[in-house]
Amino acid sequence: MSKVKIALLGMGNVGCGVLKVLSMNKKQITQRSGYEIEVGKVLVKNKDKDRNIEIDKEIITTNFDDILNDEDVKIIVELMGGIDPAREYIIKSMKKGKHIVTANKMLIATYGEELFEEAKKNKVMFYYEASVSGGIPIIEGLSESLTANKIERIIGIINGTTNYILSKMSTEELEYDKVLRESKKMGFTESDPKLDVSGYDAAYKLAILSRLAFETKVDINSIYREGIESIKQIDIDYAKEFGYIIKLLAVAKEEVEGVLELRVHPAMIPINHPLANVNGCYNGIFIRGNAVGDLIFYGHATGEMPTSSAVVSDIITILRRKLDFCKQYGIKMDTKKVKPIEDTQCGYYIRITVEDIPGVLARIATVFGKNKVSLLSVIQKPRRKGERFVSLVFFTHNTLDSSLKQALNKIKNLRNVNMIESIIRLETFK
Amino acid sequence: MSKVKIALLGMGNVGCGVLKVLSMNKKQITQRSGYEIEVGKVLVKNKDKDRNIEIDKEIITTNFDDILNDEDVKIIVELMGGIDPAREYIIKSMKKGKHIVTANKMLIATYGEELFEEAKKNKVMFYYEASVSGGIPIIEGLSESLTANKIERIIGIINGTTNYILSKMSTEELEYDKVLRESKKMGFTESDPKLDVSGYDAAYKLAILSRLAFETKVDINSIYREGIESIKQIDIDYAKEFGYIIKLLAVAKEEVEGVLELRVHPAMIPINHPLANVNGCYNGIFIRGNAVGDLIFYGHATGEMPTSSAVVSDIITILRRKLDFCKQYGIKMDTKKVKPIEDTQCGYYIRITVEDIPGVLARIATVFGKNKVSLLSVIQKPRRKGERFVSLVFFTHNTLDSSLKQALNKIKNLRNVNMIESIIRLETFK
Repeated sequence: MSKVKIALLGMGNVGCGVLKVLSMNKKQITQRSGYEIEVGKVLVKNKDKDRNIEIDKEIITTNFDDILNDEDVKIIVELMGGIDPAREYIIKSMKKGKHIVTANKMLIATYGEELFEEAKKNKVMFYYEASVSGGIPIIEGLSESLTANKIERIIGIINGTTNYILSKMSTEELEYDKVLRESKKMGFTESDPKLDVSGYDAAYKLAILSRLAFETKVDINSIYREGIESIKQIDIDYAKEFGYIIKLLAVAKEEVEGVLELRVHPAMIPINHPLANVNGCYNGIFIRGNAVGDLIFYGHATGEMPTSSAVVSDIITILRRKLDFCKQYGIKMDTKKVKPIEDTQCGYYIRITVEDIPGVLARIATVFGKNKVSLLSVIQKPRRKGERFVSLVFFTHNTLDSSLKQALNKIKNLRNVNMIESIIRLETFK
Repeated sequence: MSKVKIALLGMGNVGCGVLKVLSMNKKQITQRSGYEIEVGKVLVKNKDKDRNIEIDKEIITTNFDDILNDEDVKIIVELMGGIDPAREYIIKSMKKGKHIVTANKMLIATYGEELFEEAKKNKVMFYYEASVSGGIPIIEGLSESLTANKIERIIGIINGTTNYILSKMSTEELEYDKVLRESKKMGFTESDPKLDVSGYDAAYKLAILSRLAFETKVDINSIYREGIESIKQIDIDYAKEFGYIIKLLAVAKEEVEGVLELRVHPAMIPINHPLANVNGCYNGIFIRGNAVGDLIFYGHATGEMPTSSAVVSDIITILRRKLDFCKQYGIKMDTKKVKPIEDTQCGYYIRITVEDIPGVLARIATVFGKNKVSLLSVIQKPRRKGERFVSLVFFTHNTLDSSLKQALNKIKNLRNVNMIESIIRLETFK
């Protein structure tokens, strides 16, 4: 297996997350990329800072030139954020022929064109999936999977902090100021939350998405922007009353060829629309293409792990594309076992019709118990007019399929039991 | 601009859709692929069949060898479905060095390994995004964007027909047989619906997804399968009563390394889970990765256009990867105009506090009318205890931002109007 050396610029939360992902999924990553990935150098501001992760002191440096001049480092992963010096470091790295992965939305949104130009000139790959909505593969989606479409609109809930605040205001009926204070205390919000609550963060992301979707340069200042600071509890109430919920939306539309609408502002959306269920730290992005119709991408958006998922996937993509494209078929296929259905566990809904006679329910429950089927709830439904039997409805805790079958085999032969009418599994996504 | 010739095998709904997409988005497709794509040959069974699309008779053939031996045809798009002769045609085409795009789930699920092997041997690209859930980019997601993850589970609503039937049973309180008959009549269901309603179609798709997610060969017969034929209205009712909805789920889990759970069956899911809102002809796929957390892909699944979106995007991907990878930066960027916010249209929610005096509402409504702001509804809220003012809540139809501003400028100066408290846009996704 060939080895490849990469370097990280910055070792904050996402930096630590990237190390974690590279280590915990090492087997899969090696198999998929075709390389053993070694983090050869890490750029930090302060060498002696305590970090929540084990890291070889030898590879830590405070001098960018150590990394730039290391011929073995083939990929630079920029996780510093902000414009300077990230921009300078990336350009210098490209000139040295190093491929780049970044999570820096501000940089891409403001200096993207310059950087893409530089990447092209130096024939290096430059990926930035992590810059928008953490692990949701929306950049790849727009740049690879939906290329057959003319994109007509993008409507996204793409800022975690504001969505957390609005969700909290809505469910706990609190005013904006109170939620903001609490969320600062909990560490969910930066001490200066302006970037988030005033819509700048969403605007950066919208600029990146619009550039890809509509293939146009986007001036970040051309995006209309309203924050959530003035949303009041009473309006959230009225919204609910009329079947709406308030979300901070980032909207991009091309209804007339060549003319875009680009705006970030709070908006009421119908409560039964899938985006209405995008709560808390989740993000959701609605896309309408003229061939594909309506799509929604939904997922965890904040946090070091989803972002690191995107960063590391980008690293793997670079390594794969360095190789022959046929490498994609080269992945060694395992032959994993499939568990027999009898060994699987689920909660179950079971409906049994019985004669309306005292003691039947108790006898059925006893058989369930003896066979290790633990009941979550039992409901006896009144007899329907003209029917001879009553329905007993059981919900079970997680149960082995084989235990359930055993129990039901006995139950169906019990006195006064008419029939096991329905057995349906429960899926709670836990 | 270079030209490239492709051939279609099959000219049913999806075939026609592919021609439509290639023509309506020609400008974008050419720009993104770097090629002018010409459909050079089309294989059909019956040359004289009437088709709902204009197509040059010259390129239609009933003889596959015409296509196989045409050196200029670089990409074969297989849209015939079924195993034979699709399998044979694809293998022969690969041996001739032609790249392949297919929408054939049955073929990939049953003979995938053989075909991938053949593609590798002949160094051709082989894409099949359209084989699962139409235009939802789930194949690309699993094979490219989520490669940093160990996938822990996939839970999908991936069959349109059964989801349509279950949604209809649930909303219209009809029994299975009745909905099935109606849906056949409407053309939503095949005359032999067994592939769909017994869960075979979902099992094929689950096999394809599991292969990618867990990197293992999957024997289609190892997937546990239950259909929706025995779902009764009464169980849908009870499910609702306890906060559940019934969906046909395709479930794949790897909880113990090397051992998979693979099953297709109806299941109750919590009504407030995002997948519960995947109704009618939509599909939704839930994925949990150990880095990215929970993701959902949601979109139109059936119909010629979403499927064609996937097929054509695959064609573009092949053309791009044939070229230098740097081609991705080579896309010509437009400089599109951004519409001033004043020229955009939205519905609006407006809350105005006024003194509780007769005639205020009428005067406000008159000003809205004069300024072309059309009202959808007006509600006067009773005065809250201890407050001097009452709230008037207005919902407007689509309104020009500039018209609204004009109206509000006048309204705020009206007698007895206290303040315009809130202006929030509506987004109805129409």
